[in-house]
Amino acid sequence: MERVVRHFQEELDILKTRLLEMGGLAEERVRRAVQGLAERDLTMVDGVLGGDEPINELHIEVDDRCLKLLALHQPMAADLRAIMAAVKINTDLERVGDLAVNIAEAGKRYLQHPPVKPLIDIPRMADLAQRMLRDSLDAFVRRDQGLAESVLAADDILDSLKTEIFRELLTFMLQTPGTIEPSLDLILISRHLERIGDHATNVAEDVIFMVLAKDVRHHSAEGA
Amino acid sequence: MERVVRHFQEELDILKTRLLEMGGLAEERVRRAVQGLAERDLTMVDGVLGGDEPINELHIEVDDRCLKLLALHQPMAADLRAIMAAVKINTDLERVGDLAVNIAEAGKRYLQHPPVKPLIDIPRMADLAQRMLRDSLDAFVRRDQGLAESVLAADDILDSLKTEIFRELLTFMLQTPGTIEPSLDLILISRHLERIGDHATNVAEDVIFMVLAKDVRHHSAEGA
Repeated sequence: MERVVRHFQEELDILKTRLLEMGGLAEERVRRAVQGLAERDLTMVDGVLGGDEPINELHIEVDDRCLKLLALHQPMAADLRAIMAAVKINTDLERVGDLAVNIAEAGKRYLQHPPVKPLIDIPRMADLAQRMLRDSLDAFVRRDQGLAESVLAADDILDSLKTEIFRELLTFMLQTPGTIEPSLDLILISRHLERIGDHATNVAEDVIFMVLAKDVRHHSAEGA
Repeated sequence: MERVVRHFQEELDILKTRLLEMGGLAEERVRRAVQGLAERDLTMVDGVLGGDEPINELHIEVDDRCLKLLALHQPMAADLRAIMAAVKINTDLERVGDLAVNIAEAGKRYLQHPPVKPLIDIPRMADLAQRMLRDSLDAFVRRDQGLAESVLAADDILDSLKTEIFRELLTFMLQTPGTIEPSLDLILISRHLERIGDHATNVAEDVIFMVLAKDVRHHSAEGA
């Protein structure tokens, strides 16, 4: 039994490492899409359009690892909740990868026009969304409820930035109809970044659910 | 053993029924949000803004049922995959409920302006997205790979409708800057409907994964 438990914990650690890897890849792709946009570097933007294979492969691998952990080890309580959380987090991370592609697509269209304005708030949104993603995953790995709650709080800031960007661009569009097309793409990009924040929020909520259920039911497999 | 298996199948049937209920609620909320928009019925739109409690309660109940099924019955193969699919489908349906709220929010703003155009394509998108959702859930319950594949095909039609709407509204905005604000809300609504189609597509993909894995591995618990 002792050896089965240890084996399970090793497998669970590998699973967590894979999710961190996926998160790192997703974050890097968002970073490059927005940096390419801000620096008007079409090559960098194009690089994001082509490169979602590694995340998609990890997505399949993680799903498979979760299934095997459930089938072979039949974990209970806290471990079961951790794997359920991993299944959901895996889905969220794959969609963040898709959103990086969406940002790159809108960015590519945006770069066909002269710049509407210096981009300040969109890189700020991107930085914040990336940090939320990183923090939510760290919170998962460390079972850190406080860190997960800080992600939920950050989501409000992301939403205000999105609203600010929307208002500013709406003013541009009304004053200078020639900026309508590129402004629309910036609005879409800010919405994609908002959704990345939503995915980080989902992850954080899964972490809180996982940790609280452990506390309430007093089943800690990790401390055993 | 025989009784435990039957008990499990009964529990799995209840789980499926709950997911169908959730899907029905989500579909109805999308229908009402778009009908309220098309008929300029603010009361109907407001009704959608307030009513996401039943879906959220079902979301928690379904997650809990999945956890209990995994913990108490330790299902294998096809049954395990069905529950993994249920966990993911549950998340997708909850987000469709959120998107109905997003549509109602944008719809409420839209109704503060005179109509930009008669709404034809947006109700068409809504009908299609609702049908995709219904079909993907039916495919899950009946393990119907063909039906799931038809959902994937329908998603391309939804995407073309969204692109068409975008082009048409962009023309309006460029010609008549006074329509910029309400046009933006229609563009957002078409994107929300596209995302509902994406969630139906996710469900359909989960169904195909669940069914194919069964076929490949020749483990059928449901036929037992």
